[in-house]
Formats: sequence, structure tokens, C-alpha cells
Amino acid sequence: MAVRFALNEHMGKEFLEYTEGKEFRFVLCIAYTDTAEIDGITVAGADKESIKYTPPADAEFLHYGKCRCIDTVPATPDGKPTPALITRAALRLAGIPIFIVDAGSKVKPRVRHYSLAVKHGRNIIYGNALDKEEVIESFNSSIELGQILARSTDCLVIGESIPAGTTTALAVMLSLGIDARFKVSSSMPKNPHDIKLNTVYKGMSSAGIGIGSLRDRPLEAIACIGDPMIPSVAGMTIGALKYGSRVLLAGGTQMAAILAVIKYLGNKTDGLAIATTSYVMNDSSADMRALVHSIDASVPLLYYDPLLHRSSKSGLRAYAEGFVKEGVGAGGACIAASAKSMHSISQEDILAAVEDEYERTIERIK
Amino acid sequence: MAVRFALNEHMGKEFLEYTEGKEFRFVLCIAYTDTAEIDGITVAGADKESIKYTPPADAEFLHYGKCRCIDTVPATPDGKPTPALITRAALRLAGIPIFIVDAGSKVKPRVRHYSLAVKHGRNIIYGNALDKEEVIESFNSSIELGQILARSTDCLVIGESIPAGTTTALAVMLSLGIDARFKVSSSMPKNPHDIKLNTVYKGMSSAGIGIGSLRDRPLEAIACIGDPMIPSVAGMTIGALKYGSRVLLAGGTQMAAILAVIKYLGNKTDGLAIATTSYVMNDSSADMRALVHSIDASVPLLYYDPLLHRSSKSGLRAYAEGFVKEGVGAGGACIAASAKSMHSISQEDILAAVEDEYERTIERIK
Repeated sequence: MAVRFALNEHMGKEFLEYTEGKEFRFVLCIAYTDTAEIDGITVAGADKESIKYTPPADAEFLHYGKCRCIDTVPATPDGKPTPALITRAALRLAGIPIFIVDAGSKVKPRVRHYSLAVKHGRNIIYGNALDKEEVIESFNSSIELGQILARSTDCLVIGESIPAGTTTALAVMLSLGIDARFKVSSSMPKNPHDIKLNTVYKGMSSAGIGIGSLRDRPLEAIACIGDPMIPSVAGMTIGALKYGSRVLLAGGTQMAAILAVIKYLGNKTDGLAIATTSYVMNDSSADMRALVHSIDASVPLLYYDPLLHRSSKSGLRAYAEGFVKEGVGAGGACIAASAKSMHSISQEDILAAVEDEYERTIERIK
Repeated sequence: MAVRFALNEHMGKEFLEYTEGKEFRFVLCIAYTDTAEIDGITVAGADKESIKYTPPADAEFLHYGKCRCIDTVPATPDGKPTPALITRAALRLAGIPIFIVDAGSKVKPRVRHYSLAVKHGRNIIYGNALDKEEVIESFNSSIELGQILARSTDCLVIGESIPAGTTTALAVMLSLGIDARFKVSSSMPKNPHDIKLNTVYKGMSSAGIGIGSLRDRPLEAIACIGDPMIPSVAGMTIGALKYGSRVLLAGGTQMAAILAVIKYLGNKTDGLAIATTSYVMNDSSADMRALVHSIDASVPLLYYDPLLHRSSKSGLRAYAEGFVKEGVGAGGACIAASAKSMHSISQEDILAAVEDEYERTIERIK
């Protein structure tokens, strides 16, 4: 079987067995933070002007197989394509429906979606990234949305698309007292830890907070130095778990920040698992395992290798060479496809489908 | 009991008894058509410039108790307030949650909502009101949304806010061969039948269609001379009924057009009822009973009198004098509140709550 376990293998297997053959729904939560415009902090866009289009374009790509707000697909400055290719390939193979949530994007998606009607985030260096009332409203609205969605599926898989999201995740975790320094992953082979930490320290200083000082106030931590994706994904997870759906948080180290918010707000995490790609798990410049374990030692961490190192396409092989690595819930989408199909969808199937997506889009655009 | 029956009393009572004490969810579908800018066709706005704000403002009012895109509340040019006051009062008394769907508004609501990401409608006189592909996509998306919502409740109550919606409803019904002439209601005491019919005939002529010529093609009828609310409400209803939820279509004569689309597309209507206010039922310039009966003789038609004639507020008494009459699902919201509370919420309770809303908003604004 292609699904691997990095933490709590026993619980991870239970999670997987429970969901085998069941109904899944994939939720993509898109948002934006001006933090993404800091030099060198992200490559989630061909250039600085393009970054804000990446979240809506990812949503459009998942739905239509092409973007509407841009002519191409989101890519790094040197052309490595969005992980939405992996997500779309996996979800389509397994027939898993999608649901898009706009939790604060700067450019609105031209595809059906649920809008939380909140603003995108400000640069966290100023220490007041989001309006506190909007964080609370987004969080509560998302709890309600999670409850609605939970009743329409057996397992909700929640992914994200927000450029610079590992920096805001780092900020929130540090303010909650989780030592996430040098542990968050990056879409670049050379992880810009110094830029991220500098950004976070500036934000903390502006907000007048320190490491661990908001341990008991996760929503305030988000308002000071977080991003608008966090309260939404945390809220949906809490709402869905409450109504008996399983939840697979699909993403990289950002999902550790979500887990921390859920946990530090006093919620149970039964029924929750985290899923990522092998590229994040193998990232020697980060430590997803340690992060998750330090926040909640009982949560299973699953990961998946979509075999992109074997691809004939250099843009896909790049994933195995340290570029992009994860995003748009790619790893979790693969695991969901595997589980829904009783593991009849193989890694090779997913690789082939991703290459099809690549040929259909990247190579046709070129 | 305050709920009255205009058609199929037996089935109507069964519907009501089934839903007593059950879970309800109220869906408000907002949209816009440029048809609303024809002189004398609607009073759903203080002036021509204001009309496009009415649907999002209604949504905001339902949610927040005040509007965000305008400073006041939607009203007729001479100050009769939106029926959203009745809807909000009834839903709050009974604790019924709301869900807003933007099916093509011109001004986006500043409140959480599901967006179908479609454009608002063009003036139907040109005969190509909506893009056919968008009608189909909106219809199919709404079926899926209806399925999701159905699983989160026992009864979906669906209301609308779209200015000039009775004219587009008339147009669609005529093109389907339903003789709706002089049968659709109006927000004015003097129903401008001539303006509506002229508009419809111009649209039919532009589209090269005639009375009954699109009998087998309801979605094409909507694309030619309909509005974007219709495919969404029809789709949600079909999706929700399929997943075992009851559906209460809450509105005036527009809901007859929805019923026709559902029916003429070959769908069953078991589990469906229509609900309106006594003001629509008593409208001597319209004939809701005949319309519904001619489309589907098996669908129950329920109505409710919120006793506004007894109000001390002239703006509310106006409803009983032929102004506004219905909208934002007011009649259906009252019936849902009555059913959910096992009819412990009385007409007097609703009147008092509506007057509270009036005092809190209209009289404070003045």
C-alpha cells in the first residue's frame, strides 16, 4: 500500500481502514497575506505581481482543469507548476468532489465557492495582520460550514492555497510557545529560514508579543501575526469533527499551526489525521514530524509519494529535487484517492494522471 | 393554527405535520437582472440607482440585522421597508439558520455566502438574458449544493431577492406555455401588467420565440428571457428533494416559474410545497392559486398572515394595503417558524418581532 505513516502508525491505520471505500469531500481553502510580497519569502507565483492570483487560480484549476483569472497555471518564477496538478489528478481518479472556500483571497476566484466575506491579511511585520472581529467571525462561520459539510460526507479532506503560509504558520506557532524555528518547510530547496524568522520577529515586536505569550489566545495570535486561512481551516475542522466526519488536514507544516490552534482552543482531535507528501517528510530543512508530535502526540501523520522522481517531465521531477513539495492538499488528495478506491489507485496511476495534467496544461501552453 | 392552505390542503397538512419540531434551514438566493431598470417595473429600491443594492442588502440584513452595502435598509421609493424584516423576525424567533446563495447579483454581499460565480442577467427585452452555459453550470452547481444542504437539515426553505423577478418569471412561464398573463403579483398596489407584458413580448420577439415554444427546453427559456435566480432555486430544490429533505419554496408568483422549470425538466415534486404571504394570496391583480394549480395540481400551497394590518407602524400596515406583499421568503419563513416551534410561535409573536425590527432599524435610521 502506498500510504506511509510518520507518527502514530496504529491510529493512522485505523483512520485509513475506517475511510476505505467511504465518501470523501475535498475542501480547498484559499486566502492571501501581503506577507507574500516580502522579497525571497515565497516562490508561489511567477513574479511578485502574480502571487495574488495563485490561490484563485489553484481553485479554478481544480474545478475546470484550467485557470480563468490567469492564462497559464500558477508556477514558480522558473516554471515549476502548482501542486494543484497532483490534487486534481488524484481527485479525478477517485471521483472525489471538491468544495472551494474563499477565506480571504485578494483576487476572487471565477468558480463557484463559499465566501467568508473577509479581507485578505496584511503583512505580519506590522503586528496587526487581521481584524480580530473578522478572525472570530471567520472562525465561527467556518465551524458552521464544517458542520454542514460533515453531514454530506464521511471524510473531509482540507487543503490550502496561501502563498507565504509557512511564515504565518511559524509566527502563530511561536506565539503559542511551539518551537517551530527551522522546522517549517518551504517551496524552495534552500529554505529561507532567516527571512521567515526575521519577518516573524518584526511582527511580534510590532504586536508587543513574545514567544509563547499568546499561548492561551490562539485567535489573537492569528489576528496579530497569522493569516486568514488558519481560522477558517481550524473552524471547519472543529465543526466537521463535532458532526462525526473524519477530517484529513492535507498540507505541509502549515497544518501543524492549524492543529495547534484547534488544540490550544481546547478542542479534541479524535477523528483527525494530517496528510502530506513524501517531499515535505523528506525535507531536511524542516521537521514536520517533530512539529506535529510536539503539539499533539496522538494525531496520526500520513504521507504519500506520487513518484514524481520517475517522471519524464522536468517540471514534475523538480518536486523530488526540493521545489514546491506540497500545497493545494496534494498529499492528502492522493491518500484520499487511495483510501476511497480501496487502494486500487496506485502511485503509478497517480503519476500517470499527473503527467496527463502536465501535458494537457503546461506543455500545451508552452 | 396560523398556517392556511390554498391548494391541496390534505398534502399541505401532511407537509406541515412532517416538519413540526424538525430542523429547518433557510436559504436566500440573491440575483439581479437589468430588467429591473425598466421604468415602472419594480419598486424594490428607493430609486433606480439603489435597486442593484437590494439583493445583497437583504442578505446582509438577514444575517447582521443591518445592511453593510447601504446605510439604510432596502425600501420602496416612498419608504416601505423590505420584507427581510419579516423573514429575519420569524427566523430569529424560531432559531432557524440561514445560508445565502449569490446566484448572480450585481453588487456582491458583504456577508458570508455561497457564490455560483455567474454574471447578473441582462435586460430580457434583448432576448439573450443569460449565457446558456452559465445557466447550465448554475443549475448543476445548485443541484450539488442542494444535495449538500439537504443532508444538513430536514426541511430547506428557499426564498429569493431579485428585483423585477415577477416579470422574468412571467416571461419564462409564457415561453413554457403557461398562461401567466395577469396572474403574476407585484410589489405595487397597481400591478403594472402592461409594462411587464410589453417587456416579455419584446424579449420573446428578440429571441425569436413564442408562447409555449420552449415548452421542452426550460433552461433555454431561462437563458433567453429569464433571470439567474431561477436555475439556482430550481437546481437546489431538485438536489435537496433527491436527498430526502423537504423543500418549501418561499415566495410569491415567482415560485410558480420555479415549479414549472422543475416540473417541465421531468422532475418529481414529492416533498415540495410552496409558501407565501396572505398579501400575495389576497392580491386581486394576480392569481397565484391558478398558476400553481395549472403547473402541478399535486403541490400544496400554504400561506401566512403576519397581521401587519394591525401594526402601529404605517410602513408595515402598507403590506396589507397592497405594497411589497412578499419577498426574501417572508411567508415561508413565518410558516417554518410556526412548524419548527410546534406552532407555539403565534402570528402575534411574529407581528411583535417584526415591529421590533422596524423600530430597531427604520425608526432609528430616521
